Amino acid sequence: MLKLVAALLVGATALPLEAQTPTAAETDPVTLGLMLGSPVPREKQVRADDGSSSTFPKTRWAFSNLQALVPTQVIPRSGPVSPLPTALRTDLDSVPFTTLDGAKSTWGQAFDLNFTDGIIVLHKGRIVYERYAGAFGPDGRHIAFSVTKSFVGTLAELLIHEGKLDPDQPASRYVPELAGSGFGTATVRQVLDMRTAIDFSEDYAASGLSDVARMAIAGNMAPRPKDFTGPDGNFAFAATLKASGPHGGPFVYRTPNTTALQWIVERVGAAPLNQQIATRFWKPMGMEQEATLAVDRLGTGFGGGGMNAALRDYARFGEMVRQGGRWNGKQILPPAVVKSILTPGDASAFDATRYRGLEGASYRSQWWHRAGGQTYAVGIHGQAIYVDPKAEMVIARFASHPVASNRSINPTTLPAYDAIAAHLSKGR
Amino acid sequence: MLKLVAALLVGATALPLEAQTPTAAETDPVTLGLMLGSPVPREKQVRADDGSSSTFPKTRWAFSNLQALVPTQVIPRSGPVSPLPTALRTDLDSVPFTTLDGAKSTWGQAFDLNFTDGIIVLHKGRIVYERYAGAFGPDGRHIAFSVTKSFVGTLAELLIHEGKLDPDQPASRYVPELAGSGFGTATVRQVLDMRTAIDFSEDYAASGLSDVARMAIAGNMAPRPKDFTGPDGNFAFAATLKASGPHGGPFVYRTPNTTALQWIVERVGAAPLNQQIATRFWKPMGMEQEATLAVDRLGTGFGGGGMNAALRDYARFGEMVRQGGRWNGKQILPPAVVKSILTPGDASAFDATRYRGLEGASYRSQWWHRAGGQTYAVGIHGQAIYVDPKAEMVIARFASHPVASNRSINPTTLPAYDAIAAHLSKGR
Repeated sequence: MLKLVAALLVGATALPLEAQTPTAAETDPVTLGLMLGSPVPREKQVRADDGSSSTFPKTRWAFSNLQALVPTQVIPRSGPVSPLPTALRTDLDSVPFTTLDGAKSTWGQAFDLNFTDGIIVLHKGRIVYERYAGAFGPDGRHIAFSVTKSFVGTLAELLIHEGKLDPDQPASRYVPELAGSGFGTATVRQVLDMRTAIDFSEDYAASGLSDVARMAIAGNMAPRPKDFTGPDGNFAFAATLKASGPHGGPFVYRTPNTTALQWIVERVGAAPLNQQIATRFWKPMGMEQEATLAVDRLGTGFGGGGMNAALRDYARFGEMVRQGGRWNGKQILPPAVVKSILTPGDASAFDATRYRGLEGASYRSQWWHRAGGQTYAVGIHGQAIYVDPKAEMVIARFASHPVASNRSINPTTLPAYDAIAAHLSKGR
Repeated sequence: MLKLVAALLVGATALPLEAQTPTAAETDPVTLGLMLGSPVPREKQVRADDGSSSTFPKTRWAFSNLQALVPTQVIPRSGPVSPLPTALRTDLDSVPFTTLDGAKSTWGQAFDLNFTDGIIVLHKGRIVYERYAGAFGPDGRHIAFSVTKSFVGTLAELLIHEGKLDPDQPASRYVPELAGSGFGTATVRQVLDMRTAIDFSEDYAASGLSDVARMAIAGNMAPRPKDFTGPDGNFAFAATLKASGPHGGPFVYRTPNTTALQWIVERVGAAPLNQQIATRFWKPMGMEQEATLAVDRLGTGFGGGGMNAALRDYARFGEMVRQGGRWNGKQILPPAVVKSILTPGDASAFDATRYRGLEGASYRSQWWHRAGGQTYAVGIHGQAIYVDPKAEMVIARFASHPVASNRSINPTTLPAYDAIAAHLSKGR
């Protein structure tokens, strides 16, 4: 059960891949009657304490209702809502593509194939496609999982640009508490790019008190066993990790890098993550809804994956990046920061990941980069903010795919994105 | 510790009355540095799991940040924000009054005497006074405690007006699950007016597994002890209560009456409480912020005291009632419902409470009524929405008084309200 509960935010899944996965329609949370009734019947309850909120298909309700399951901080908005022009097109659903597995599909079919809860496509700054399903809608907030990391990375790039943070200094220069940990000798840049040699396995399928389980317990994402003597809090957990070798090697996706980076960002920025996201983005950008951030027992946000927001606001963020940092009549990000975000990392450091569809890709500053020049933020179970400058296209997507790893989702998603980009680029 | 944790929402306090209570200034949560730092130092942490969030003065932070401590449902808003005209006056702070204990004070001094976190005075529909302190501000949400009950009562009056709910029918007519409980033979009206003979003691000072502690555990407001075999959920708890005599006797303040009423309202209104508050009030009234409602483990809102909202939105609600149900260009409540809400209950049924300052008062439909014609919603630790039709005045107040019971707060509050009403009524 621990693993199931831990999975809520860190993304394990109890569903064997080889099982006959029911379709999106069969697992629609409204059709299933999840969380309906006064009181909700036992079998329809989505609960944190019994692990059901982290078990597919109940995840299809939970991902759109995180604050009803765990404590959350507010990321406040303010002022008038910034316009997001709409010019819906009806021709996208029929755009064909072939999955990496060779199956024929269309953009419209991919919505359910990916267990999409909501998706927006912006072309040249206008919404050309917007669709919601299940327990999610334009007024809702959906968990972004590791898309959150890209916000932390962007804040770090801002602090670097402002001269407050030196990427070549060791992390411990800014957070002395990290000096005794494996992060002590890592540079800020190595942390930013996940090229540290931190001894941590992001293996969600591991049993027992795995690294992931210990992280979840420390971060209040899983109930704390009575005999648990591990650290309390996200930052305290990061400080316990050791290095297993020299830093600066290949990119290895490990969430504690983001936790260490968040700690640096909070110290250098002199404010907690939720407030920095609000001050830098949510308030000046005229977001239409406040956002939330899951917190540990002492009130530290989960920068590794705890953000929840409206789909349109994620679309605004992606479009702001695409437009060189301008949005809502303001320069939200300096052009130099946008340039840094859009700059790919070292592709050779990424090779060993062997992600299908990501040949020639890289990871830098908590953003992913495809060989075609696209930059994007990724979260398990299908979350994404995808910026394709050449196609003048931004995609924001929330999903509740039964499988956590995007390794299982990319073979459908990436060809679909490429097809829609090509379609939009050629005009109608 | 259980009692301390339970106190977060149901309002016990660990502070002996006779202790030298520090002042509001001495317990300002910002001055104290509560929840500041990355991470927050141990002694500055306000946590749900160690009971500190329910211990004064840490309550002064907790009451303004409930969703960072417990799971909450959203009460969504929508559309343009309704105007709330402002015509601030500087003459109110010096208005003198004498407390029921005979002490001389002024309106301005009463702010800190009552450990006020935020207060708005509306006169003839305009904000003449607005002030915030501590961890609260115009953009924040504060727990309303039992002010929540008046929303449940108003929804019930709406359903009565619409012919969907008959106040003379037994509660079990609408919620068959209550048939075997003490509520089974109570009428809806008796539940509405808290004149049932339910066997439940609202004694926050009781030790051990008291009625209040059991309610808190069932409702997820306190950790569930391993050996606890009691009910799971707010509704399930209400269904376990027995009657200790005939219904229809004197008014006795017992929160489970509101829980039973909420159950009736959810069944008859065919939607959970948070959605009904949103549909009836938050959306049509153009509230400026979404609100939240604390939930039990199965997602039932805590209608007895779990609502959190912005101060200005509470002011809007009170002003809507004062204006005969009209707000934002819409008839939010039919005049007949407003009339029913503003109609006092049976004062003789209230006499035994012996509340100081409430001689001749009454309780009806989850609203309090003073002998002077004022109608108001009350929550422990100083929460209130106060409607004084004669003075054309509405007061919305959030506070974090060290003492839960308004018996300790009324002796300062009520004379202050009377003085400011008289002052406003005579003009400048």
